[in-house]
Amino acid sequence: MKTLFRTALLLVCGFPLFACTPHPASDAPYRIEEGTIVFAEPARAEGQCDVLQLRCDPIPVVRVAFIGLGMRGSTAVERFTQLDGVEIVALCDKVPAHVERAQRTLSVHGLPAAQEFTGADDWRRVCELEGVDLIYNCTDWQMHVPIALYAMERGKHVAVEVPAALTVADCWALVDAAERTRRHCMMLENCCYDFFEMTTLNMAREGLFGEIVHVEGAYIHDLRELQFDRRHGYVDMWRLEHNALHTGNPYPTHGLGPLCQLLDIHRGDRMERLVSLSSDQFGMSAYATAKYGAESAEAERPYALGDMNTTLIRTARGKSILIQHDITSPRPYNRLHTISGTKGFAQKYPIRSLAFDPDAHHRLSDEQLDQMLRRYEHPITREIGEKAREVGGHGGMDFIMDYRLVYCLRHGLPLDQDVYDAAEWSSLAELTEASVRNGSMPVAMPDFTRGAWRKVEGFSHAMAE
Amino acid sequence: MKTLFRTALLLVCGFPLFACTPHPASDAPYRIEEGTIVFAEPARAEGQCDVLQLRCDPIPVVRVAFIGLGMRGSTAVERFTQLDGVEIVALCDKVPAHVERAQRTLSVHGLPAAQEFTGADDWRRVCELEGVDLIYNCTDWQMHVPIALYAMERGKHVAVEVPAALTVADCWALVDAAERTRRHCMMLENCCYDFFEMTTLNMAREGLFGEIVHVEGAYIHDLRELQFDRRHGYVDMWRLEHNALHTGNPYPTHGLGPLCQLLDIHRGDRMERLVSLSSDQFGMSAYATAKYGAESAEAERPYALGDMNTTLIRTARGKSILIQHDITSPRPYNRLHTISGTKGFAQKYPIRSLAFDPDAHHRLSDEQLDQMLRRYEHPITREIGEKAREVGGHGGMDFIMDYRLVYCLRHGLPLDQDVYDAAEWSSLAELTEASVRNGSMPVAMPDFTRGAWRKVEGFSHAMAE
Ligand SMILES: NC(=O)c1ccc[n+]([C@@H]2O[C@H](COP(=O)([O-])OP(=O)(O)OC[C@H]3O[C@@H](n4cnc5c(N)ncnc54)[C@H](O)[C@@H]3O)[C@@H](O)[C@H]2O)c1
Ligand SMILES: NC(=O)c1ccc[n+]([C@@H]2O[C@H](COP(=O)([O-])OP(=O)(O)OC[C@H]3O[C@@H](n4cnc5c(N)ncnc54)[C@H](O)[C@@H]3O)[C@@H](O)[C@H]2O)c1
Repeated sequence: MKTLFRTALLLVCGFPLFACTPHPASDAPYRIEEGTIVFAEPARAEGQCDVLQLRCDPIPVVRVAFIGLGMRGSTAVERFTQLDGVEIVALCDKVPAHVERAQRTLSVHGLPAAQEFTGADDWRRVCELEGVDLIYNCTDWQMHVPIALYAMERGKHVAVEVPAALTVADCWALVDAAERTRRHCMMLENCCYDFFEMTTLNMAREGLFGEIVHVEGAYIHDLRELQFDRRHGYVDMWRLEHNALHTGNPYPTHGLGPLCQLLDIHRGDRMERLVSLSSDQFGMSAYATAKYGAESAEAERPYALGDMNTTLIRTARGKSILIQHDITSPRPYNRLHTISGTKGFAQKYPIRSLAFDPDAHHRLSDEQLDQMLRRYEHPITREIGEKAREVGGHGGMDFIMDYRLVYCLRHGLPLDQDVYDAAEWSSLAELTEASVRNGSMPVAMPDFTRGAWRKVEGFSHAMAE
Repeated sequence: MKTLFRTALLLVCGFPLFACTPHPASDAPYRIEEGTIVFAEPARAEGQCDVLQLRCDPIPVVRVAFIGLGMRGSTAVERFTQLDGVEIVALCDKVPAHVERAQRTLSVHGLPAAQEFTGADDWRRVCELEGVDLIYNCTDWQMHVPIALYAMERGKHVAVEVPAALTVADCWALVDAAERTRRHCMMLENCCYDFFEMTTLNMAREGLFGEIVHVEGAYIHDLRELQFDRRHGYVDMWRLEHNALHTGNPYPTHGLGPLCQLLDIHRGDRMERLVSLSSDQFGMSAYATAKYGAESAEAERPYALGDMNTTLIRTARGKSILIQHDITSPRPYNRLHTISGTKGFAQKYPIRSLAFDPDAHHRLSDEQLDQMLRRYEHPITREIGEKAREVGGHGGMDFIMDYRLVYCLRHGLPLDQDVYDAAEWSSLAELTEASVRNGSMPVAMPDFTRGAWRKVEGFSHAMAE
């Protein structure tokens, strides 16, 4: 029965879900050249130029419209009630109750009600609104790109949840739209703003790690309960549906974002090549069987996503990056955040570690660690960290992210994360799947800056004055 | 100057040390088929058959000859003075002082002096000795295979330090010699016998992890001091010389051994495919510069070995294995030993963790952990662990290994590690280098059992009665 089901799905999808094919399907968006998977890189349109370090007119009060008010979007609205210099002007979700909930949040905080939109196509109208500067997009993965593109075309800046896009073609679409419209397109990679990540970024700037050689990140988070909950999980079970059809690493940005900032990706270095390998899928079927019984549709249907995906990336400057994804295995939450350089070492999970030459054989004691973390705290978290912890949102990092987004918009500064970050980090979704489906064949990573990755020297947070 | 030096070496070696070549050199031991590196698999000779579960005549008192009495071999002699049922009959090292030191060890423990051999070619004579059952080979990497082959040809069992061999061809040579001579060839992978590893193996047998899906191991050990010490390091600086010429993972077995036992490799499953990626080399040059000055030969010569190598392996049953090697970066010692299954999780480094469904979001408290480790302690460490800790040798595991080797020989039982383990684990040295030098191209892993990997069901330690 299981086999029958798999065969049926195989026919529907047109490619084998569990085998490695040495050749791409005829409609694959890539070709294979000398044992390497190569995706098409569209030429830049005449007259269009890059948006590196893009500055736009300062916006004294940022007028925000939220689209997607589910688990994530509802907390974003909550946080925005705590920010200076913003105005929440519109709320949109296809589930009316989600809009209502967000309106209540505004009223609890003494803020005026926002315009409401509850149609499944209303996001277009929201993007067309006159008095809106920023579209804050917390819809599910499928809706990220259409909304982001339409928002930019309508002259809006856009902030979009992770991953910004699911395909390489869509990553290019975001890049081209941002370049053509000269609008900001920031992916909301909140993990870049967590305290340990910010501190280690600061340490890296101060040279404490020497030359950074190897880094590791991950999204290891047991989401089985949420994925399989028909009532309280993701709306329409969108995440499970995606993972039933796709393998590789669909959600690479939490680990990758902070690492790319550390390595100055497209600010002097670039990710050139990756290989990706997945285990088979065991855990989702086992969970579904335990929860719904062996005869249930959930237990019998196939899931393409392997339990563990590991991806290795090499940069132009010879650094290596390891990225993992596992949302199925029973194990403690882990984003790794490992940094190994010629002079020192840091790791966040499972316990925060720091070690430096010449005593690097042992990690610092708890006391020394705390002292170092205080001494090298990033100026931004030093300034806003306390308030962020109060407001909350993954321990504060979400608020710091929103704060920085609004700060840069208000001062007309380049955002911390540009559209190339969004594209580079998100592109792994399809690049890793291509590698996995071809027996871990190497993939040449697209250069979304189209040659401009050495133009900016070093990652930095823009500051006013 | 540096560039000049590199170019010179490049000419000497005949292949580029720092670039990826999409095609193998004409004398490469592998071919490329559909984007996969494939090594030749020699057919088994007529009449030769496998040595799976090989049993030989019991040896009441095991007469041992040691070859290689450097840092490692000298401690092996020390441990053997504490074992019942053994007799140390010969000591061989090309450095006479090392033989003297070992003789002193015997005399300190009230044992008779052993026959001495100090010529660089005396290992042949040692292998030819009449009254020897076991050659215990602790020479440097280059000497492992010639001695092991000659020993087996002369009817001796052989125990050989890690890695047993450096090339795939040499791995086959060991397999063929063992099959032809019906002698044991055990690689001395001591990490299989460490306490946490033994306990988690026992837990796996008891089903605590459910189906094991993904595992990780490593050899992360800052050896810069030892590698660059002209007087107190490796004899003739053999390790540095090797690492100057080779990349990939030359020393994969410490992490891999315990994982292969967990996954029943060639006892129901097999490693099918790997990809390997290395960072460039930064740390050795930086260290040499700091120690000897920028103009020193050590600072100016190239080193092929990348600081960090990561290798991903897929098994026939769809499990994934991650293996790392870094002996250059300043960071705490780490062998990872991560086990992730459908029901539970274990990790040894940087801190011992256990987590089990349904509470796997958090690791067990220290108290619960200790309780579980006591409850599931492996019968073998339960029996011999206390004595092993007293004797020492990496905290006791070395002694447990020797104890098991001697126990099995004395009872005529199959050894815990057979020649296929030695070949499979050691073959990574060349397989990973081939992948790295070809831009992380996938490598088809040889099947050293030549089809017999499903013949034995499940790894086990043989016990008398
Ligand atoms: N950065 C983080 O830490 C983090 C955490 C959780 C989720 N996320 C991301 O946030 C996004 C949303 O995830 P979630 O957990 O909130 O899922 P969810 O299902 O709870 O929310 C998605 C919301 O989008 C709405 N929506 C879908 N299509 C719409 C349309 N056409 N018009 C209007 N609304 C529409 C749904 O009704 C739902 O309310 C995802 O991209 C996810 O990856 C990020
Ligand atoms: N399993 C472990 O935990 C562990 C730990 C350390 C080393 N090792 C392994 O042990 C082996 C030896 O390493 P080491 O650290 O002792 O290095 P070492 O250089 O200290 O010792 C090697 C010894 O072999 C001797 N030797 C070399 N050629 C010889 C010959 N032709 N005849 C006789 N003797 C010869 C050398 O003189 C030297 O004494 C290596 O394979 C290494 O990988 C394993």
